[in-house]
Amino acid sequence: MSRTVFKGDTEYFPGIGQIQFEGPESDNPLAFKAYDRERRVAGKTMEEHLRFAVCYWHNFCATGADPFGPGTRDQAWARSSDPVQMARKRMDAAFEFCTKLNVPFWCFHDFDMAWEGASIDESDANIQTMVDLANERQAETGMKLLWGTANLFSNPRYMNGASTNPSFDVVAYAASQVKAALDATVALGGQNYVFWGGREGYAYLQNTDTRRELQHLAMFLDKAREYGRSIGFEGTFLIEPKPMEPMYHQYDFDAQTVIGFLRHHGLDGDFKLNVEANHATLAGHTFAHDLQMGADAGLLGSIDANMGNPQNGWDTDQFPSSIYDTVHAMMVVLKMGGIGSGGLNFDAKVRRESTDLSDMFIAHIGGMDCFARGLIIADRILADQRSSDLRDGRYASFDSGDGKRFENGELSLTDLRDIAVATGEPELVSGKQELYENLINDYIVRGAS
Amino acid sequence: MSRTVFKGDTEYFPGIGQIQFEGPESDNPLAFKAYDRERRVAGKTMEEHLRFAVCYWHNFCATGADPFGPGTRDQAWARSSDPVQMARKRMDAAFEFCTKLNVPFWCFHDFDMAWEGASIDESDANIQTMVDLANERQAETGMKLLWGTANLFSNPRYMNGASTNPSFDVVAYAASQVKAALDATVALGGQNYVFWGGREGYAYLQNTDTRRELQHLAMFLDKAREYGRSIGFEGTFLIEPKPMEPMYHQYDFDAQTVIGFLRHHGLDGDFKLNVEANHATLAGHTFAHDLQMGADAGLLGSIDANMGNPQNGWDTDQFPSSIYDTVHAMMVVLKMGGIGSGGLNFDAKVRRESTDLSDMFIAHIGGMDCFARGLIIADRILADQRSSDLRDGRYASFDSGDGKRFENGELSLTDLRDIAVATGEPELVSGKQELYENLINDYIVRGAS
Amino acid sequence: MSRTVFKGDTEYFPGIGQIQFEGPESDNPLAFKAYDRERRVAGKTMEEHLRFAVCYWHNFCATGADPFGPGTRDQAWARSSDPVQMARKRMDAAFEFCTKLNVPFWCFHDFDMAWEGASIDESDANIQTMVDLANERQAETGMKLLWGTANLFSNPRYMNGASTNPSFDVVAYAASQVKAALDATVALGGQNYVFWGGREGYAYLQNTDTRRELQHLAMFLDKAREYGRSIGFEGTFLIEPKPMEPMYHQYDFDAQTVIGFLRHHGLDGDFKLNVEANHATLAGHTFAHDLQMGADAGLLGSIDANMGNPQNGWDTDQFPSSIYDTVHAMMVVLKMGGIGSGGLNFDAKVRRESTDLSDMFIAHIGGMDCFARGLIIADRILADQRSSDLRDGRYASFDSGDGKRFENGELSLTDLRDIAVATGEPELVSGKQELYENLINDYIVRGAS
Amino acid sequence: MSRTVFKGDTEYFPGIGQIQFEGPESDNPLAFKAYDRERRVAGKTMEEHLRFAVCYWHNFCATGADPFGPGTRDQAWARSSDPVQMARKRMDAAFEFCTKLNVPFWCFHDFDMAWEGASIDESDANIQTMVDLANERQAETGMKLLWGTANLFSNPRYMNGASTNPSFDVVAYAASQVKAALDATVALGGQNYVFWGGREGYAYLQNTDTRRELQHLAMFLDKAREYGRSIGFEGTFLIEPKPMEPMYHQYDFDAQTVIGFLRHHGLDGDFKLNVEANHATLAGHTFAHDLQMGADAGLLGSIDANMGNPQNGWDTDQFPSSIYDTVHAMMVVLKMGGIGSGGLNFDAKVRRESTDLSDMFIAHIGGMDCFARGLIIADRILADQRSSDLRDGRYASFDSGDGKRFENGELSLTDLRDIAVATGEPELVSGKQELYENLINDYIVRGAS
Repeated sequence: MSRTVFKGDTEYFPGIGQIQFEGPESDNPLAFKAYDRERRVAGKTMEEHLRFAVCYWHNFCATGADPFGPGTRDQAWARSSDPVQMARKRMDAAFEFCTKLNVPFWCFHDFDMAWEGASIDESDANIQTMVDLANERQAETGMKLLWGTANLFSNPRYMNGASTNPSFDVVAYAASQVKAALDATVALGGQNYVFWGGREGYAYLQNTDTRRELQHLAMFLDKAREYGRSIGFEGTFLIEPKPMEPMYHQYDFDAQTVIGFLRHHGLDGDFKLNVEANHATLAGHTFAHDLQMGADAGLLGSIDANMGNPQNGWDTDQFPSSIYDTVHAMMVVLKMGGIGSGGLNFDAKVRRESTDLSDMFIAHIGGMDCFARGLIIADRILADQRSSDLRDGRYASFDSGDGKRFENGELSLTDLRDIAVATGEPELVSGKQELYENLINDYIVRGAS
Repeated sequence: MSRTVFKGDTEYFPGIGQIQFEGPESDNPLAFKAYDRERRVAGKTMEEHLRFAVCYWHNFCATGADPFGPGTRDQAWARSSDPVQMARKRMDAAFEFCTKLNVPFWCFHDFDMAWEGASIDESDANIQTMVDLANERQAETGMKLLWGTANLFSNPRYMNGASTNPSFDVVAYAASQVKAALDATVALGGQNYVFWGGREGYAYLQNTDTRRELQHLAMFLDKAREYGRSIGFEGTFLIEPKPMEPMYHQYDFDAQTVIGFLRHHGLDGDFKLNVEANHATLAGHTFAHDLQMGADAGLLGSIDANMGNPQNGWDTDQFPSSIYDTVHAMMVVLKMGGIGSGGLNFDAKVRRESTDLSDMFIAHIGGMDCFARGLIIADRILADQRSSDLRDGRYASFDSGDGKRFENGELSLTDLRDIAVATGEPELVSGKQELYENLINDYIVRGAS
Repeated sequence: MSRTVFKGDTEYFPGIGQIQFEGPESDNPLAFKAYDRERRVAGKTMEEHLRFAVCYWHNFCATGADPFGPGTRDQAWARSSDPVQMARKRMDAAFEFCTKLNVPFWCFHDFDMAWEGASIDESDANIQTMVDLANERQAETGMKLLWGTANLFSNPRYMNGASTNPSFDVVAYAASQVKAALDATVALGGQNYVFWGGREGYAYLQNTDTRRELQHLAMFLDKAREYGRSIGFEGTFLIEPKPMEPMYHQYDFDAQTVIGFLRHHGLDGDFKLNVEANHATLAGHTFAHDLQMGADAGLLGSIDANMGNPQNGWDTDQFPSSIYDTVHAMMVVLKMGGIGSGGLNFDAKVRRESTDLSDMFIAHIGGMDCFARGLIIADRILADQRSSDLRDGRYASFDSGDGKRFENGELSLTDLRDIAVATGEPELVSGKQELYENLINDYIVRGAS
Repeated sequence: MSRTVFKGDTEYFPGIGQIQFEGPESDNPLAFKAYDRERRVAGKTMEEHLRFAVCYWHNFCATGADPFGPGTRDQAWARSSDPVQMARKRMDAAFEFCTKLNVPFWCFHDFDMAWEGASIDESDANIQTMVDLANERQAETGMKLLWGTANLFSNPRYMNGASTNPSFDVVAYAASQVKAALDATVALGGQNYVFWGGREGYAYLQNTDTRRELQHLAMFLDKAREYGRSIGFEGTFLIEPKPMEPMYHQYDFDAQTVIGFLRHHGLDGDFKLNVEANHATLAGHTFAHDLQMGADAGLLGSIDANMGNPQNGWDTDQFPSSIYDTVHAMMVVLKMGGIGSGGLNFDAKVRRESTDLSDMFIAHIGGMDCFARGLIIADRILADQRSSDLRDGRYASFDSGDGKRFENGELSLTDLRDIAVATGEPELVSGKQELYENLINDYIVRGAS
């Protein structure tokens, strides 16, 4: 289903209509070359597979500031001194952008969409105002909410953590925000609810009781789950791993750390992972690795689609532009049977130097084409018998006989030794990495037509 | 108890007697300046606290080879073409060195101490020969075995992993080695048994079934545990985390990853962590961080004492020479009540350019003094009320009242919101990191006398 | 000479007097334990050796904002909506702080001290206003200016570079700022003038003409030098290397890159390096390495004293708290005969979580004590014959004979071969790294009394 | 010109004939999909553009050893206890492999090709023996030598450096090796001579006189140049930058460091850079960056084609398999007018787990196809007006008027300020990074047919 283009009182992206698929030979920077929404791949449309979302914060709130300078983008929707007016204009811009881009989903933090008041009650009322408006906009356009979340890291009160703050007062305050954000997410039909623990970690190990803080984190998540379920939230709770930044160390370091934490605290029935590419690489992993760890555990819930660069040790949040990344990612996703109720949220920002309004479209188009290509190419690779020989075929000795008995736990260490003595020196079997790498390159340059 | 100096047929370190404590003003490179074996700190002797071990491989087998050149150290004990003779000489050198250094413990891999035969039976017999000799040497000298382990990463058969190899034949072969190494460890009264999964991981994600390999790893460890307990091993099984090298990715990435794995597979009753400083830093953590994660989980079992450097992205295995590292490490260890049946094994090698025989002593002395200083200074810092104010005092709001009720799980999200509304904006409380850093420096320059 | 404590209309740091030296046993967090201003070390007072400076930006402008949240520190001097009033209050706070800390120097950017106007002429007038006030304050207190600089990276106009901007208009604009900042520096008797090329580099290699941009950079510096000398500036121009952040790649990557650039463009007669610890580590070097490279070239001009941490890949600008760093740094500085007209500027910020006003003092005290300890310990190490044996003694073969002839260029490749044939296999000589590391540790724990 | 397939007494790669181009749809792992030797691109054949070379060491000497285990590949040519026989067999295998792969060039170190004797004279004679044989093989097959070099890092005598060793005896010894390797290179018609300073750097800064060592390095290179020119060597001397490994720090850190060094010592008329992809990334740069720095300086001489991975901090020397890397590299090379007398040497090794003999072919085929694709795609991108608009067009303001006058040095700082005042606030111009990234992806998936 295509979205209806929304225009509010002001058209914020004039001269740009709904982005169309024009195919691989098009030179139009404002057209899709690969993302053909209704095209079927592996039994579903591209739109159903990829479930793209646009994020509120990078596009409609941030303007390009970095630690060394303020924003560079002039946003017509941000020109208002009245917070209510600005929030309304911002939402108009958001729905116009999303529907022109023709993505199915959007995502927000509480105080992207609304604005913080002088008290919890005021803040909650502000959120309610914007939820009502967003509901109207969703109904008009067909847009849906992939997930909501609360910003528990910007306000100075959270400088030492939110649910892991050494002060109980702050923990309680954080709870008030999560409650409101959960209420908003449910009201908007959100399919997931995300926790990114930006300040849940430490600046300095020696002044921190990590054990106690992690117990508080688990307790907090447990209570949020309980509340969410009580108000009818049927979606997935998601934890977004990130190893560092802004904190020196963040508790949700990577996929494996979060998986261990969720299981230990009995949260893995309701919580899954929202894996972000640039966070995985900051943790010393590939994007595909963290996706695979999530998939192996049955806990890959959703994806924050972006890209970092290996030379810079911070979260650059670039738009995905590596076809290798998207091929490998979609291989994991296709093998696990799809991303389910999750999606691909572009937690990415145009470069500070990309100041044209059209750059926001160009960047999203590039990211969407990159994943569309990844999807098509991954599907072809997985369908090629050679790729499954190069992976699954290597484990054939465990499919029957003693290998199968080992998997079933039927062989003791002594049994295994006896078998080894009988078998003698095992054969060396090439891993054929280079062959597999060549195969992937051959498919990439064959394109995605 | 001091060890009796051992000398075999040949004295391999002539001119060097048993190393003595001479105090902080000594200029003798072959004396301890801080490690005063019988000195009591926090209720135990330094020897009891630190439980130093010398490792066999770096000292008596390796000679300084790196990927760009062969060894540089001429070792009299390695001049023999007969493997039996060479293994005996090597053991003589090891016991001479350890007793001259006067450390209580040693550690080995199966094929450091013995040598691999043409068959499993031959290899096992070789190990038995050396176990018999080692038992004699232990009895003569008072040396004890901190831990044994099997080398499941050097032989080409393990190039694609040992217990996680895609071929069952290799898994069975690995089991035969672990069985023999467990037998040897028990025979020598070893207090722990270590698994370092050097090739348990992948070179290339796309040709690897990570889920299946991790299940095999868990099954293998379970069977090793079962066998170990069946032959009377009462010590601790230890997993040594390392994120990479030699493999692109290794499954036992860091403390948190291993903790999650052990708990998920029900192995945490018998297995703990052997945390190595340089492995923690390769994983993007401080040494103290991985120790603390182990301690928090009750799973810090032992320590591989060494140091890397942040500029080089591989395991440099340098001797510990940072007093910050040892102060922070001993703060964790003292707070958890000591290292128990684990110890501080110097998994460290003299630099390839340090070719004097005495450099082995100098390096160990430096490492031992560094930890002795760390112990004394950590103890003083922990005894200073200011340091506990700067850490534990920050959490006072959870010791009673609503904070305590939160910790007890008695407050719902809604309760927390109500409390937050009643409390209003929380106070900003400084983390005082710089103050704590100053305090630590003040203690360091006050020395360890 | 001690500085007179300055207090303006408001005392911004009430309850804190001028910081005194109380010695190593003091527990007073607001006293020096090691920095004893008038104490003589190696022929000069500590104050003369260390030439500490306080920076304007981190202390009096920034409030703790990071990319994930706004500032946390409430600064009484920043509570004004009138830019003139705020700039005056800020300067009062700065002089009060510096004189209470009793450092000899301060440093500024044009728009820390003043504020940007609606035009170049307005901005220049604003700077002039503040220069006049600063001159009064300097006269009253005895404070001096270590260096001035222009902020050519924050304003959006510089997003694609200042002197390396693809647009000539921006290059010209940058020149106008440098002219005014040079004028201000000269008017205030500044001893150096710094260029930190925050945006001089690229976000994306493919859209950048690096050759042309680097030529523009050289031309720009040449013209700045010409102007500076024409108005009577007799100090040193300084380039501050940094490899990345905010840009993907920055041209002044590290000491060696800048040295090569200065020499190639004939700028090395007037320009030297301002080496920052955290920038060196971001470039994959130790702090001491970049200092040494500067010293070797005769181009180490000044130091930005701070510290990063190896786990986080961005510029954390922490206060120096590693005695190893300061010992190694002062060994380089003492060997080169002192820092000359440069100094030690604390380009460091208190942590975002350190929100007490006193934390600014505590952090500077910690950094000053750390360098004072480094100075004393370095001096003792260099005076120890063992340390010079362990370094200079290794090169004795070049002090005479064929080695000397080689250094003099008198031996051809064929001569060298003939000598090698005659000499035979060279002796292996241990580098004794561990011995030197032990020596340094022994001196550190002996303290700095 | 195609090479004649060489077979010696033994065929070492039986069953594999000369590799043919079969086009993009071929599934034959032993055929080229993109590298079509005689195909013309931008005025030259692919063979002329790419000038591929096979290296001796990784393919015919190394067998897969790493710091944690010995080699895994069984090489029929290495089965001999007689060094002369083994060297001859190895050379037979090398020429068979190269001619079957049909590359134009090979490269060697002295003691890959020959073997070290008990004295310098013996070693030189060994080299002479192999040079004679290699000359025969070259004549028979049409193979040519891209470059020769001397291994000055493996032998323990070089543990503290070769030309930068603290002992003059070692410097002289190194000279004897360089002399012989230069003689061999000239005798074989080598087009370049390479210096990779594997141990030219330091393990520990504090025991090193870096200034003196760097002067020795420059003197050594000067004398090598003098000798080379005296014996008729007309090719290019090449320095291969690498930042670290095996040493903590290596002097030839990166392109910019080496460029500065060559210019400072007047070596830039004869010496250029041999840029290696994996070395650039270890230094914190992209491959393309170091190529561009070399090209900008007119000092890019040759390329070591391989690839690392950003997760592992050591030189993994993988075969190039990233089309982005090769597109970006060939954009630099095409813009500079080709690689001249340099070439693309695969300083890459098959993975330790790739144990089939055919893996060596598969890996080289993958690398060659990857660069062939890079060449074709880079040529198309450069021919697209949009790409030059996105780069060169940004600098139009310097092509005439005041911008041109600035480039010519005709504008003082005061002139620039006056212009800035007249111009007013410069326009913000988008860098269009995302648009350029999309353009590159569009070309990649269009393939290389």
